[in-house]
Amino acid sequence: MIYFDHAATSFPKPQEVTDAVIEALTVYGANPGRGGHKLANAAAKKIFETRRELAQFFGLADPNRVIFTQNATAALNQGIFGLSFEQGDHIITTSYEHNSVRRPLERLKREVGVEITYIQPDQNGRINLEDVEKAINARTKLLVATHGSNLTGAIIPIEKLGEICKKHQLTFMVDASQTAGILPIHMTDMNIDLLAFPGHKGLMGPQGTGALLINNKIDLKPLFTGGTGHFSERLEQPEEYPERLESGTLNTPGIAGLLAGLLHIKKVGLEQIFHHEQMLAEECVSRLKKIEGVTVYGPDEGVKRLGVVSFNIDGIDSQEVALILDQHYNIAVRAGLHCSPLAHQSIGSIHTGGAIRASFGIYNTIAEVEQFVCAIEEIRTAYFV
Amino acid sequence: MIYFDHAATSFPKPQEVTDAVIEALTVYGANPGRGGHKLANAAAKKIFETRRELAQFFGLADPNRVIFTQNATAALNQGIFGLSFEQGDHIITTSYEHNSVRRPLERLKREVGVEITYIQPDQNGRINLEDVEKAINARTKLLVATHGSNLTGAIIPIEKLGEICKKHQLTFMVDASQTAGILPIHMTDMNIDLLAFPGHKGLMGPQGTGALLINNKIDLKPLFTGGTGHFSERLEQPEEYPERLESGTLNTPGIAGLLAGLLHIKKVGLEQIFHHEQMLAEECVSRLKKIEGVTVYGPDEGVKRLGVVSFNIDGIDSQEVALILDQHYNIAVRAGLHCSPLAHQSIGSIHTGGAIRASFGIYNTIAEVEQFVCAIEEIRTAYFV
Repeated sequence: MIYFDHAATSFPKPQEVTDAVIEALTVYGANPGRGGHKLANAAAKKIFETRRELAQFFGLADPNRVIFTQNATAALNQGIFGLSFEQGDHIITTSYEHNSVRRPLERLKREVGVEITYIQPDQNGRINLEDVEKAINARTKLLVATHGSNLTGAIIPIEKLGEICKKHQLTFMVDASQTAGILPIHMTDMNIDLLAFPGHKGLMGPQGTGALLINNKIDLKPLFTGGTGHFSERLEQPEEYPERLESGTLNTPGIAGLLAGLLHIKKVGLEQIFHHEQMLAEECVSRLKKIEGVTVYGPDEGVKRLGVVSFNIDGIDSQEVALILDQHYNIAVRAGLHCSPLAHQSIGSIHTGGAIRASFGIYNTIAEVEQFVCAIEEIRTAYFV
Repeated sequence: MIYFDHAATSFPKPQEVTDAVIEALTVYGANPGRGGHKLANAAAKKIFETRRELAQFFGLADPNRVIFTQNATAALNQGIFGLSFEQGDHIITTSYEHNSVRRPLERLKREVGVEITYIQPDQNGRINLEDVEKAINARTKLLVATHGSNLTGAIIPIEKLGEICKKHQLTFMVDASQTAGILPIHMTDMNIDLLAFPGHKGLMGPQGTGALLINNKIDLKPLFTGGTGHFSERLEQPEEYPERLESGTLNTPGIAGLLAGLLHIKKVGLEQIFHHEQMLAEECVSRLKKIEGVTVYGPDEGVKRLGVVSFNIDGIDSQEVALILDQHYNIAVRAGLHCSPLAHQSIGSIHTGGAIRASFGIYNTIAEVEQFVCAIEEIRTAYFV
């Protein structure tokens, strides 16, 4: 089969990832940090090694401020709800956000009374930075932006947003769900305070992993409190990181797999990965655009972009196209709203029931893209003969 | 090595568990419910099958009210903070609770102003039910109790507490961290409204799994909001279960492993498992009690109990004993407070820096217990020659 659903989760995983998960399950399957014995220590060591590698990879000074979560959504929620807001506080975000950012923000709006400004990037991901500066007021506390659209593959210039946040002393949070493991991210250099990402997409780890990286200027309230292994005598959640934000048993096999995924990515090289996926996307877009009756959304050709391509065949429901691709051609894509309804409004696909999304990974090939475009051509022809 | 740390996590896992994780990672590693293709459907089907099996196993009518979490702590937090409390509301709990119950409750006390009554079970886990009835007042909303102490192995009579909750129309929440997969639990028959447990202890699944089961009389506020795969067009988190309380990508490999663990448990039989672990505990206790200078905590001999035994060698720090057991005897136990400081206060071990805990699993043997007790005897002798 052809797997073009990497924006949802990468598949297949490198062999090292599966091996690392098996090792964690079968060789040192104890509870990390919750025992004083060899197996528990081996598990704790693996987890700390993952913290250290992630901190280094993303330009964060303190590995203990790498917080493991079940997924990026949990990391984003911990980041957003972990900050303190009062009625009338102001948050700036973009119309490209996934529901995992938008819904927490809208909840803050309903429950706390914050105000939200949605900045509208253009189809290439470009943002009018003057618009952002103009939107800032005395009550603006937070700017949260995705690094790349999960719908169109447009890349948002987070380094420029970081500069603005530094200048105006705003907390800057980045959702790197589509870019961690694909584009370089350096929290210190880019003035990022909070960085959230899944472990199971670009970083090639298993599902069940995500992380929130927190620089040492920020303190967050924990969403969960509970057992922390250390500091058990205290009635309150410990102040220390990572215990402050990590209660209960971590996903040791998943985290071990995430470390293996990260090391694999580092071996292949970010630049190599990015260029390969961009090349597949450009090839796909340029071929799709030649088909009559196909509307492609997102960045113009030649613009730096992610390996995510969304489009529709005019007059055919996107879900139906995805079904035919799956059943008849054995090609896995995703159709629908992709949890990003505002982005659909931006590109004008909200009324067509969403779009077909093909998203590429490091193991995909040009031959697969060709096969895919031929299938789209056939489907289109079959419908309109 | 001898692994006696099953109360922290079970190890080794059955081969089927590892196999199921590998299958999820390598055969159908897509994002469940987030695509319309075969792999995504296979992942979604496996997750639903796990919901159905868990619902059936724990006597819950609606499988969609099985909520997957990263661990039991997350499930307990979602349960406790998902309910609505006002200042002056009253909660009853026990002094045997783990910090994953106690810290959330104490947080509610600090932040919302609820009042908490800690009921004190005796060392056999018996509770004076009249005390509970007397503690109930017009503002009592919730009774939350562990099903079994992670420190002493004492079993709490949840079926009787369930009757009281039914009579007084209190919400009843059970922490089955030490008993799920070991003692029978039936939510409907026992009047349990909320049941939380880890997947990686008695149920033999991988770490990174836990669940909250919610009967259909209760609605919870979500702690997390975000992408739900379905209902993406809504600004608010969907009302429907499980989407309401499950945002972001689930731990598919972990859940597949949990299903395999549960099926393994069902095959072996709960009664068989419980009796085996109880027998090991009884053997261990009776032998330890014969050693001069050893204090064993918890249930009297002959009382129904879990396979968890805590004790101290008078005059030797528990951490030191654990270290010697690990380094010299290759026996893995845990020492310290076990995240349950109140329980230590109850048994009088809070001032000795905690206790040594040996906890048994289905693969442990009497020969291992004998070897362990001999080691304790040797350590004791070596110190006091």
